[in-house]
Amino acid sequence: MAREFNDVAATLQSIRYNRGSLHLLDQRKLPLETTYLEIRDSTDGWNAIQDMVVRGAPAIAIAAALSLAVEVFNLDGFNGSAGEAVSFLQNKLEYLVSSRPTAVNISDAAGKLKEVVSNAAATTSEGRSVFQAFIEAAEVMLGDDVASNRAIGSYGASCIQQQTGKQKLSVLTHCNAGSLATAGYGTALGVICALHSAGVLERAYCTETRPFNQGSRLTAYELVHEKIPATLIADSAAAALMKAGSVDAVVVGADRVASNGDTANKIGTYSVALSAKFHNVPFYVAAPLTSVDLSLSSGQEIVIEERSPKELLNARGGLGEQVAASGISVWNPAFDVTPASLISGIITEKGVITKTSADDAFDIKAFVQKTG
Amino acid sequence: MAREFNDVAATLQSIRYNRGSLHLLDQRKLPLETTYLEIRDSTDGWNAIQDMVVRGAPAIAIAAALSLAVEVFNLDGFNGSAGEAVSFLQNKLEYLVSSRPTAVNISDAAGKLKEVVSNAAATTSEGRSVFQAFIEAAEVMLGDDVASNRAIGSYGASCIQQQTGKQKLSVLTHCNAGSLATAGYGTALGVICALHSAGVLERAYCTETRPFNQGSRLTAYELVHEKIPATLIADSAAAALMKAGSVDAVVVGADRVASNGDTANKIGTYSVALSAKFHNVPFYVAAPLTSVDLSLSSGQEIVIEERSPKELLNARGGLGEQVAASGISVWNPAFDVTPASLISGIITEKGVITKTSADDAFDIKAFVQKTG
Repeated sequence: MAREFNDVAATLQSIRYNRGSLHLLDQRKLPLETTYLEIRDSTDGWNAIQDMVVRGAPAIAIAAALSLAVEVFNLDGFNGSAGEAVSFLQNKLEYLVSSRPTAVNISDAAGKLKEVVSNAAATTSEGRSVFQAFIEAAEVMLGDDVASNRAIGSYGASCIQQQTGKQKLSVLTHCNAGSLATAGYGTALGVICALHSAGVLERAYCTETRPFNQGSRLTAYELVHEKIPATLIADSAAAALMKAGSVDAVVVGADRVASNGDTANKIGTYSVALSAKFHNVPFYVAAPLTSVDLSLSSGQEIVIEERSPKELLNARGGLGEQVAASGISVWNPAFDVTPASLISGIITEKGVITKTSADDAFDIKAFVQKTG
Repeated sequence: MAREFNDVAATLQSIRYNRGSLHLLDQRKLPLETTYLEIRDSTDGWNAIQDMVVRGAPAIAIAAALSLAVEVFNLDGFNGSAGEAVSFLQNKLEYLVSSRPTAVNISDAAGKLKEVVSNAAATTSEGRSVFQAFIEAAEVMLGDDVASNRAIGSYGASCIQQQTGKQKLSVLTHCNAGSLATAGYGTALGVICALHSAGVLERAYCTETRPFNQGSRLTAYELVHEKIPATLIADSAAAALMKAGSVDAVVVGADRVASNGDTANKIGTYSVALSAKFHNVPFYVAAPLTSVDLSLSSGQEIVIEERSPKELLNARGGLGEQVAASGISVWNPAFDVTPASLISGIITEKGVITKTSADDAFDIKAFVQKTG
């Protein structure tokens, strides 16, 4: 079992799951320590998501589902009816959704799992059979995510090569949308990995991504691990880097994409997008279609989570020593919204959504219908 | 003497000088510790500037001059000729200029002091008289800086009130151009203080200013000290804050202004300027005319200093614990250049330089000639 705690360098798994057992890599301690936390139930799962043990929209949705899967797998004393199992699972799913309100993936996953649970209850009176159906559905989500990310990587790499027309190109990313943010391979970082595998990546640039340093801690860790030529910059240096002509494309992940293409992602994404627009650098969002919320007509409807002032007041995203002056107020939104007008394309597992030339807008609904 | 080390909260002096004695507030330790370092000579001065004990373009120029003033004041054994004193001082001034190559103020101050020294040597054969002239000139610089900053504050506050036409307004600043960056009162922060004194400031916003955290450590410290309603944000949140309509104007300092108005200032200034332009928020540079280098036709000629990767790899600007992944490369430019096209006005001690409507460009040479 000791091996489980040592081979992360070889696999970079944020989620370790076997039926009845879940461990999450404690990403707050990266890159200095590689520690897995055991997650026994949905309360452990909720806390791990809220406390940023696991982060990244796809990863938290799957971690939430699996935390509940291990909880019900190990509920030995449960002998309730199918109806009781349904309301148990539905309540727990609601609870899990409340851990990170901005990420649509988790509420999307909860919606799908509720449907699985209702359907199962229609065919059995046994509560345990409903649990079994839930567990299997959560496991399918885990497997599907990696396959989906590989497809995103492949579509994104082709699109960016074609768009830039360059033999060698450098790509900037913000925050972490890599193996650590997903069940594996990553979305935005999957695109960078695919460009590297194809031999066309000159260099990857990652921002430190204040205040939680997902870039300097996690993306830098993944890039070093993958032996990709990579350079870390301060968030505020992205514009200067583009002015120097060093960035051929930007690729970022997404926490939530509205039906018009407006995209909520880590705070600072909007600023990078503005700089990219000014410097004529193409700006891509890479995200599975589960990140799209067709119920939102625009980004204005996206609720932006505000996080603790401590993330700016203390080092290491609030976990370390005091840095800022005592007594200062803080505004610490976790996300911002990048308007569709600044986005060149949305890279999904079904292909790249581009703008219709007629009105320079995304038609995501049509894309989903066509590919669905 | 103990009092000297305790009353910073009442005075916020970065430079404590009495003839023959110089102490610099160790700004690396703010806001947690208030410690003054004794500076005995130009070597101490060079080290203090290079190591960021003292920072801010006006403050380092004055600290450099005063470090040499105390050195020659205390050179008891010196009985050389005026010519020997001149070459001693000129060599030391050259050496001091090399401590921070981007800031024009220090080389500008050195140039003026060399002239003082040459003129003094023309009227005496005594080395010590040349030293005396140098000491007096350095002391005048110290006094002039505060007066100049008060004028900048006053001109800037009037201009911004007039430009925005608002009864109450909120201003964003980046980095630290306050009392701590100058001999007193500050430039950009002087403008904010003047708006506050006039009762029109709703709120000041300061960025943390990665990687050295001059905003969260120093500007926040000054704003709290001055009891100005103030909020700290991540650098990358400036664009989102402007989109939310919370910023009526931006005011920043300058390390060097080219004759066309292109301005080198702390890394990230360019990014804030791009966001301001996109959101139609007026963007001002506040700097004494000593920051203008008329020998540079544009910002392309400004040499940008790169600083240690440690500032991004470790907490507290390189002084604290490791944060980033081991093995990652770093690009850490200390400054960027904001083109004049993004700047609404340059606030100086002689008034605000605005663009000539004919060609939407600054004519700084004409302003200097007119006011000189």
